[in-house]
Amino acid sequence: MNEVPLTAVKALTFDVFGTVVDWRTSVASELRATLGAKGYELDWYRLADEWRSQYQPALESVRSGQRPWVTLDVLHLENLGTLLEQHSISGLSDAELEELSHAWWRLDPWPDTVDGLTRLKERFIIATLSNGNIALMVNLAKHGGLPWDAILGAEISHSYKEQPQTYLHSAEALGLRPDEVALVAAHNGDLLAAAACGFRTAFVSRPTEHGSNQTTDLEAEHDFDVVATSLTDLAQQLGC
Amino acid sequence: MNEVPLTAVKALTFDVFGTVVDWRTSVASELRATLGAKGYELDWYRLADEWRSQYQPALESVRSGQRPWVTLDVLHLENLGTLLEQHSISGLSDAELEELSHAWWRLDPWPDTVDGLTRLKERFIIATLSNGNIALMVNLAKHGGLPWDAILGAEISHSYKEQPQTYLHSAEALGLRPDEVALVAAHNGDLLAAAACGFRTAFVSRPTEHGSNQTTDLEAEHDFDVVATSLTDLAQQLGC
Repeated sequence: MNEVPLTAVKALTFDVFGTVVDWRTSVASELRATLGAKGYELDWYRLADEWRSQYQPALESVRSGQRPWVTLDVLHLENLGTLLEQHSISGLSDAELEELSHAWWRLDPWPDTVDGLTRLKERFIIATLSNGNIALMVNLAKHGGLPWDAILGAEISHSYKEQPQTYLHSAEALGLRPDEVALVAAHNGDLLAAAACGFRTAFVSRPTEHGSNQTTDLEAEHDFDVVATSLTDLAQQLGC
Repeated sequence: MNEVPLTAVKALTFDVFGTVVDWRTSVASELRATLGAKGYELDWYRLADEWRSQYQPALESVRSGQRPWVTLDVLHLENLGTLLEQHSISGLSDAELEELSHAWWRLDPWPDTVDGLTRLKERFIIATLSNGNIALMVNLAKHGGLPWDAILGAEISHSYKEQPQTYLHSAEALGLRPDEVALVAAHNGDLLAAAACGFRTAFVSRPTEHGSNQTTDLEAEHDFDVVATSLTDLAQQLGC
């Protein structure tokens, strides 16, 4: 725990998938709408989980240098192709595949998100620090009414969390030192990586991000600057 | 004039200095506040104009490849040093110089700006397409209440208008084709350069950007898609 209060930071940056938006429910719903209409009957939550499970391996192929940096939109589309092949699902046109891959542009915020961000924005610069690319983040903001001041993260750094440059370049883009910026996230690993770069940290618990049987990130496992149960709780704790 | 109506675009991108904010009045006021307090008496508007007149040559040193890409914040600080030296103004600490260079972070919007942008945002993605860097644009937005969806332009492309990649990379970052994006600007040259990249165009007249004796960009000199007298007029014309 840092001696300086977290309210001294100038910017709050946010992990988005899981922390700000409920990707699992939204993606399951999009899969059901598109594939259900074509006659498929599947466990849509499980399908959403399987799509998401390809996320880290895909990012790793970029982080490791195995392939040049590409946007998350590209990776989501590729991974969707793999997912559908694994389930022998066919008959979608290229346009339908792209549209379905944009399910990640239409994720609903958690119920406390918009109120919390709106309150925090009064006092702090609020920005995304996500692996999502700018187009994805902008469309997500339009969909959910997320009042970001800036879209930072992967695309402006051409790197992916938890690579240090993703955090460091985001602070630099704001003209701030790392210790003038906090990361808000529902994931212990993300916060640890940010802290290692000098960021301040706020853990927000999202115990149903992965469904009711979630086993990971149920609570803060380290000495973060603030631990909150929602973004409105965070706003409250920061005096907003 | 394109046959497809401008309302078909998905994003409006904006030149900022002069189009969205009144840099001249604001910078003159900041110069007066800082240097006046130190006993200097000068024509503050003229000083603001001189500072601004170093802008294009500084950008050209980057565009030409003479020096690597640096942010406009860096160029504003360098140019301030030159300006003060030319006027034999001394006695400012490094911190005071940096603070004064951030006059460009605190430019007031034109009276129609916030209303116009707020209305346009209901229907379109609205983003900056400015030579200003992200920190500058974010602070400007906080200062004036500018409700951008995204900060695009120079920093994400590491180029400066009117280089084509500044426009093209901004459209690409939104996941859009150039003809799905319009540039809104008070400057004929900027709009011509955007149009050459395939952008749609909206001219907004700002006949006092350079003061009451302004001689340039008083009106649209080419066949742009829309010609407006303010951002609220633009909103009106686009049905917002």
